[in-house]
Amino acid sequence: MSHTLLTRREGDVLVLSNNNVAARNALSFEFYIAVTDALRDAASDPSVGAIVLTGEGGHFCSGGDLRQLAKRRELSVQERRVRLEGLHDLIRAVRDCPKPVIAAVEGAAAGAGLSLAMACDMLVAAKDAKFTVAYVKVGLTPDGGATAFLAEFVSRQVLTELCLTGAPLSGERMHDLGAVNRLVESGSALPTAMALAVDIAKGPQKAMSHIKNLCRHAMRNSLKDQLELEAQSMVEAMGSDESLEGIHAFLNKRQPNFSQLRQVSE
Amino acid sequence: MSHTLLTRREGDVLVLSNNNVAARNALSFEFYIAVTDALRDAASDPSVGAIVLTGEGGHFCSGGDLRQLAKRRELSVQERRVRLEGLHDLIRAVRDCPKPVIAAVEGAAAGAGLSLAMACDMLVAAKDAKFTVAYVKVGLTPDGGATAFLAEFVSRQVLTELCLTGAPLSGERMHDLGAVNRLVESGSALPTAMALAVDIAKGPQKAMSHIKNLCRHAMRNSLKDQLELEAQSMVEAMGSDESLEGIHAFLNKRQPNFSQLRQVSE
Amino acid sequence: MSHTLLTRREGDVLVLSNNNVAARNALSFEFYIAVTDALRDAASDPSVGAIVLTGEGGHFCSGGDLRQLAKRRELSVQERRVRLEGLHDLIRAVRDCPKPVIAAVEGAAAGAGLSLAMACDMLVAAKDAKFTVAYVKVGLTPDGGATAFLAEFVSRQVLTELCLTGAPLSGERMHDLGAVNRLVESGSALPTAMALAVDIAKGPQKAMSHIKNLCRHAMRNSLKDQLELEAQSMVEAMGSDESLEGIHAFLNKRQPNFSQLRQVSE
Repeated sequence: MSHTLLTRREGDVLVLSNNNVAARNALSFEFYIAVTDALRDAASDPSVGAIVLTGEGGHFCSGGDLRQLAKRRELSVQERRVRLEGLHDLIRAVRDCPKPVIAAVEGAAAGAGLSLAMACDMLVAAKDAKFTVAYVKVGLTPDGGATAFLAEFVSRQVLTELCLTGAPLSGERMHDLGAVNRLVESGSALPTAMALAVDIAKGPQKAMSHIKNLCRHAMRNSLKDQLELEAQSMVEAMGSDESLEGIHAFLNKRQPNFSQLRQVSE
Repeated sequence: MSHTLLTRREGDVLVLSNNNVAARNALSFEFYIAVTDALRDAASDPSVGAIVLTGEGGHFCSGGDLRQLAKRRELSVQERRVRLEGLHDLIRAVRDCPKPVIAAVEGAAAGAGLSLAMACDMLVAAKDAKFTVAYVKVGLTPDGGATAFLAEFVSRQVLTELCLTGAPLSGERMHDLGAVNRLVESGSALPTAMALAVDIAKGPQKAMSHIKNLCRHAMRNSLKDQLELEAQSMVEAMGSDESLEGIHAFLNKRQPNFSQLRQVSE
Repeated sequence: MSHTLLTRREGDVLVLSNNNVAARNALSFEFYIAVTDALRDAASDPSVGAIVLTGEGGHFCSGGDLRQLAKRRELSVQERRVRLEGLHDLIRAVRDCPKPVIAAVEGAAAGAGLSLAMACDMLVAAKDAKFTVAYVKVGLTPDGGATAFLAEFVSRQVLTELCLTGAPLSGERMHDLGAVNRLVESGSALPTAMALAVDIAKGPQKAMSHIKNLCRHAMRNSLKDQLELEAQSMVEAMGSDESLEGIHAFLNKRQPNFSQLRQVSE
């Protein structure tokens, strides 16, 4: 654990909270490493059913620290790239993690903070949360997958405007655009994300990791490739102890108990 | 023809209706074969202008038969794959068929039933129709292209929630999400789909088969590849008897008569 | 400059206006060449900050000239392809131009006119503008990227209906579908597009050209490829004079002055 990241467990849910309150939870290399490590540990821990990513003190994350970014110009292009890959490794860790990751967003999600929120599998946002592709305002360009993730639900025309102007989107507008799973009043993002995470954590863990993998490839894979991925997952799932329990429960009109199937070491 | 599939002709329109009412039109290997064969026959029959796919008894299709699926665990992975390819061959047959296929959905479109409805070129749905990515509830994972087709109009965040929770979508919600061509009152899906099919069947058959092909690749092709596909279709269409009739009719301010150009054997 | 294209400068903004009013701004090979040349010149002119593409006399563009298209059947397939590539070169020129191109649409944007409007980076449309994938009505198939551009914001089901029926979309409906940056009353498209262009032209020119490039690949690139593209742009931007000015201005709580950084020869 690191000072910049608070981690705690609530039942099957792991909560990761950005804790750089004085700088509205600006990012740092230390934070990248801490979250990436926490996600890697959670991936191999069967007692973790779902993960919530949030921020302390009313902001999700204000993005890169401009004082640090200003110094990058003194570095070689290769050295800059190494620093940037810290962020991109984090983004890849969120996408590759076999457990569902839910972002709980209050306040600012700006620059790479927006990228991090949108990399998550699901999004709970306060109505007045403020998502901003801020880069252009300081002469920079988007990173962290911001353009990839926004393009999944806005038109190219709107994406271009957002990136060329840095105009903010409220949580409410993000919901209208289709990217928000639960839109809540200010202050309720974390408890709502926790309730969603608790519910999802009851599901079949192996099947859910395959489902996350299917969902992250679904938009850009060719139909041929996606059918192949679906087929591979399904023939495996047909032989799993999870589908044994699930189908048996359904045919006997009872609720399935998937939690018992986890090899929890505790 | 098979007991599980009713087929009939109404003018230029071929109607294929799922007929396994006792099991809310659950799928079977027999059904896959029957629909795939019917689509293949229609592809080479110039008298068929459009196809409507629907279900008897108030449900489109409740998906896989869980009693049958439960037995798949006794099969080898390879044998399971063979059964699954029956479904995927059907999905490919819908996509590859040169004629427009319109789904008319009442009641349940669950699991692979949802996949089949969304594989069609157009969708007519009753407001209270119920679309469900049901798999996770029984410990399984989506197949039939469900994740590919849903990703064409919902965000990754919403796709993930639908697939991880199995929460249903009403016809009305599917319409709000942009996937429904005609939203109708309960009981009106088939007549509305028929009217749409009759209208479309009057169009230029060769051009329409190229248009269907363009539309199914449009979202995932690179711009370069899609421009190439458009160019190939267009230079062919510029020499067709259909564009001869169409342009001539337009310049003479009359309705084109494309139907006369079909080599109907009847 | 050509009779079919009016060009003028207003400050940092280049205005290109389709001027074939007698034929509702139908397209011609001469027009393709004129716009492609104008975009190429603007690309290397640092005094051009943004481009507005519009049409004279109340229509954006009614598409191909049917009397000319009717004669194409007398050409070989290869000769037809050469003519078509004139249009596709224009579309590629809009996409490849490093400056933001804003379409200002009143009245008809039909056939390849729709393609041209949708190829632009941003779209300002009058509520009663009329976008039509008209091809099917005369037995032809879409070109100019129409299917690629529409698929960026409508479902495959709606795309197929639009292309199979040629049904028009109002500016208002295009806005509901998410493709319109500014929806305006009839007659206000050009002044609104100009105001947007003037505002955008104040931005950091190098960063904006990278942003346009990111936005046009964002939807179809894999996440891996898009992260790579973002990283390449960002490490370059971190060393630019634009980010030096932008970050310095931000830290000193003043507005950045990016315009001074352009090497304007005038």
